[in-house]
Amino acid sequence: MTSKNQLPKINAQKLIAKSQLFSIEQLDLTFSNGEKRLYERMVGSGRGAVMIVPMLDDETLLLVREYCAGTHSYMLGFPKGLIDEGESAEVAANRELQEEIAYGSNKLTKVSQLMMAPAFFNAKMDIFLAGDLYKSSLPGDEPEPLELVTWSIKDYQGLLQQADFKEARSIAALMLVVDKLRG
Amino acid sequence: MTSKNQLPKINAQKLIAKSQLFSIEQLDLTFSNGEKRLYERMVGSGRGAVMIVPMLDDETLLLVREYCAGTHSYMLGFPKGLIDEGESAEVAANRELQEEIAYGSNKLTKVSQLMMAPAFFNAKMDIFLAGDLYKSSLPGDEPEPLELVTWSIKDYQGLLQQADFKEARSIAALMLVVDKLRG
Repeated sequence: MTSKNQLPKINAQKLIAKSQLFSIEQLDLTFSNGEKRLYERMVGSGRGAVMIVPMLDDETLLLVREYCAGTHSYMLGFPKGLIDEGESAEVAANRELQEEIAYGSNKLTKVSQLMMAPAFFNAKMDIFLAGDLYKSSLPGDEPEPLELVTWSIKDYQGLLQQADFKEARSIAALMLVVDKLRG
Repeated sequence: MTSKNQLPKINAQKLIAKSQLFSIEQLDLTFSNGEKRLYERMVGSGRGAVMIVPMLDDETLLLVREYCAGTHSYMLGFPKGLIDEGESAEVAANRELQEEIAYGSNKLTKVSQLMMAPAFFNAKMDIFLAGDLYKSSLPGDEPEPLELVTWSIKDYQGLLQQADFKEARSIAALMLVVDKLRG
């Protein structure tokens, strides 16, 4: 099913604020009904990202607890990271696993592709289920080692109740994997 | 289970870029292992947001297709919006329903609370399941009427396959509701 809507016309777009990480763009839009609006959006790197749900065996999920500046707290979630220049999503997923949890995977299965807040970002993230793990580590760019946390997928409800497991993409990834494994 | 980690110390924080919608802050951090880093994060309104999964009957999900500037495309998702000053999350949810799909709900059940990318944002969103709907509309601030889309929850897999149903928070909300109704 596709949209019946006709895209608004972009009359002008300009960079209005910029930092090391973020570039904010203003769009001057005319909607198909004639309404005019100014919108703001983030200009992304366009590189894409990956999130990996690693399973040590048929039951055991591996997660990381990592410092999050947005909330100034440690949050629990699945390993993730940006795809580097020239990398495939699969290669990036296996690299991030080795950097963040010191495992590689012989069996990466793409589960889905998510987007973060498309109203403001153009940020795609491929979700992988990773099985057949082997020990292997690569140096990452984290300021401190990430805390590794194991959780039984049978108790996914308990994981959903954790006060620090709240990230929308991690919750989506967990529930998609639970649904996939339920068959 | 709580974190074993000791929070990094914030040595300094300053506003480094600002637009109408976004404020970007730089944090000068020292991690508990002595590592020093500069991080960037978005300063939010702190108002919180709601997303509502409205069901017309035991089977029928209601969604909206809306213009998203981040991707310059129309995307399918559940009604959502910011909580206004002085509003409870429930009141905001019922207002957004009336603004976006012209229904109110006599039965709002909180399903979960999600966060968007806590590495960069402090953005909480309460997810509600809305039943016992009644026709009622309120004027919203949308530039054009939102396209209303119905979908059978029995075919949630088909919804997940839609190229424009990709928003992480909408996918998380769908899967949490599917899981809740499955019992």
